[in-house]
Amino acid sequence: MALIVKKFGGSSVATPEKMFNIVNRVLAGKKEDDNIVLVVSAMGDTTDELVSLAKQVTSHPYGREMDRLLSTGEQMSIALMAMAFMEKGHPAVSMTGEQAGIKSSNAYGKGRITDIDPSRVFEALKGGNIVIVAGFQGITDDGDITTLGRGGSDTTAVALAGAMKADVCEIFTDVEGVYSTDPRISPNAVKLAEITYGEMLEMARLGAGVMQPRAVEMGSRYGVPIHVRSTFSDNEGTIIREAYTMSANEHVITGVADDTNVAKVSLAGVENKPGVAHTIFQTLADGNVDVDMIVQSVRTINDALTDIVFTITRDDVVLAKDILENLKKTIRMDDFVINEHMAKVSIVGAGMLGQPGVAAKMFGILSAEGINIEIISTSEISISCLIAEDRVKEAVHAIHDKLVLDGRG
Amino acid sequence: MALIVKKFGGSSVATPEKMFNIVNRVLAGKKEDDNIVLVVSAMGDTTDELVSLAKQVTSHPYGREMDRLLSTGEQMSIALMAMAFMEKGHPAVSMTGEQAGIKSSNAYGKGRITDIDPSRVFEALKGGNIVIVAGFQGITDDGDITTLGRGGSDTTAVALAGAMKADVCEIFTDVEGVYSTDPRISPNAVKLAEITYGEMLEMARLGAGVMQPRAVEMGSRYGVPIHVRSTFSDNEGTIIREAYTMSANEHVITGVADDTNVAKVSLAGVENKPGVAHTIFQTLADGNVDVDMIVQSVRTINDALTDIVFTITRDDVVLAKDILENLKKTIRMDDFVINEHMAKVSIVGAGMLGQPGVAAKMFGILSAEGINIEIISTSEISISCLIAEDRVKEAVHAIHDKLVLDGRG
Repeated sequence: MALIVKKFGGSSVATPEKMFNIVNRVLAGKKEDDNIVLVVSAMGDTTDELVSLAKQVTSHPYGREMDRLLSTGEQMSIALMAMAFMEKGHPAVSMTGEQAGIKSSNAYGKGRITDIDPSRVFEALKGGNIVIVAGFQGITDDGDITTLGRGGSDTTAVALAGAMKADVCEIFTDVEGVYSTDPRISPNAVKLAEITYGEMLEMARLGAGVMQPRAVEMGSRYGVPIHVRSTFSDNEGTIIREAYTMSANEHVITGVADDTNVAKVSLAGVENKPGVAHTIFQTLADGNVDVDMIVQSVRTINDALTDIVFTITRDDVVLAKDILENLKKTIRMDDFVINEHMAKVSIVGAGMLGQPGVAAKMFGILSAEGINIEIISTSEISISCLIAEDRVKEAVHAIHDKLVLDGRG
Repeated sequence: MALIVKKFGGSSVATPEKMFNIVNRVLAGKKEDDNIVLVVSAMGDTTDELVSLAKQVTSHPYGREMDRLLSTGEQMSIALMAMAFMEKGHPAVSMTGEQAGIKSSNAYGKGRITDIDPSRVFEALKGGNIVIVAGFQGITDDGDITTLGRGGSDTTAVALAGAMKADVCEIFTDVEGVYSTDPRISPNAVKLAEITYGEMLEMARLGAGVMQPRAVEMGSRYGVPIHVRSTFSDNEGTIIREAYTMSANEHVITGVADDTNVAKVSLAGVENKPGVAHTIFQTLADGNVDVDMIVQSVRTINDALTDIVFTITRDDVVLAKDILENLKKTIRMDDFVINEHMAKVSIVGAGMLGQPGVAAKMFGILSAEGINIEIISTSEISISCLIAEDRVKEAVHAIHDKLVLDGRG
């Protein structure tokens, strides 16, 4: 007997026909006494269509009303999925986020799950039902709906699995699992059988799109294994969990991630004195510009002045320009330059912690390819290099094949 | 300062453009300190589209899931309407039936409003908002959504107006108000300035389509005036209330109604003994066939046998045939005949109560037109005659012009 939470995204439930594919698959795989909870997204392009309807009414982001509007997409798909299960002869009930006990903060459009009381879900399972829960939504203390932002249904599924102490949370997706690097870039990418929460979080943060960081965090917090697998095949995918269960799956380097949503900002001739860096980055933070890699280089000729270089996402370039133009009026700065043709390539692996030679190897590989490194940053389980965007594929190829594949012997 | 509940149906909110028409109209007519609550239906054909989506999944009527699915239509329109008010500069909040405190029975697809606690609506009005409430839905004690059946948004509006002790409930529709008869049949139809709840209920029951009986009942129960008026003009419509406020509006006959959704069932040679009629009509009731007019005629030659004639709606003809075929096996009956080409023409007026000559006048008019009356039935404030369907327009014309118009001098 197992308690399993299965999450299916919008493309998997886009049509009644696709819904029946899921129903057949779930029923075929279900053991007599298995308890099954499904978390589903809105059908196909429903959410986009609702957004475009709202845009015909207003260009203002009225969060409460927008969230109410968007949350109807999941309410439609859960009702239809429950009908589809019953049509195939299995009892089923649908539940909104509220009915499944999912409490969320009132940050409309990007609510966070604050608490889960799944007692009604348990009750329905006890009654022999498959329970279909609306992803992407929770209810505030005031009884208003908030949506959970991009990848919100993943977060719903993992958090619910955690709160219910499920045996596993299965995330069905259009890829076979988590790969050692992006298979669209590198044909040598290998599917990982296992990966730790920490590594997966770092991979997601550094550009791997398969899972949203928040869902991985939820898995880590509750200790629920996440099985990322394909909607279209019965193959085993990738299990994300606290630690490797098979040493064969453990490697110094788990994967290579790349991120091209990067711009480099260089501030030239900034005063080299305490408080200046604080002023610059506090001003950017106040303007909602997220800064990633930072390097400050003291000039050897005139150490009263320094250059500060950092990276931001390309989405924030316009915003950052305005802020820096203003900043030029209050602090000393020769000028600033923004370069949008940059990319970040990173290696991730919990195993590199005790292996000081890894960074050197990575730099050596890039150097052998003639790729210049502009900034380096490191975390406990990752090393990232900022390089020119037009070299990113070569960099991923070379690093992946020489560090990841070689490490696997 | 007034508290006004305004109800707009699906065709009035079918597009963002039409929504803005409503917003402009409501804001233009709103006095500074007026409190306005809007009740809206789903946009245009949304409900039909949701029904057809469900039909692609199953032909079974899974009530709970169907009601969840259908209720999303109103959730979309309230969110968009609230955005539209804000876009035009007026604060607004949307509320689901649940948030507006509308409790309903768990009869899915035809829930009844059991209680209303509008405290959250009052709170939002106090905050200076126009409140947009989802019509057609309530919440059960178990926290599940039920829809309220055909015309459910009218019922929501009137019940909410009653619970809030609103000054008036305005029902916006595609006609100018309630007419003395169907203007599509009789060009002489006059718009009524006033009509009583009792008369309106009787008109609705006898075929006038402008208001659902249940909404009128709600108005009567709570004593809230209902103003039926046009979406497309500023003209005064018809006020439905407890009694006439102006004697000029009071007449012996208020209106003429016609109903062609009628079939006549004749049972020939039934035993004339106690209990037989009970068996017949109980069996029909058990099979969910509603019987309207009934007449039983004792034969003068052989009074051991009798003929029973009654009317049902045409929708129930197939069902009734099956039931009667079965019934022939258990009770004595020569045969039964169903005639679908019948119609019912009725006059309604609280004023006819003390006027015994009215019925005779009606029969006289039909007789002068050469129209045969098959069954007559009467209530305290109405008289109905079953006639051939192909004579119904002539009957309505003649009765309307001679009884209603003449009575108005």
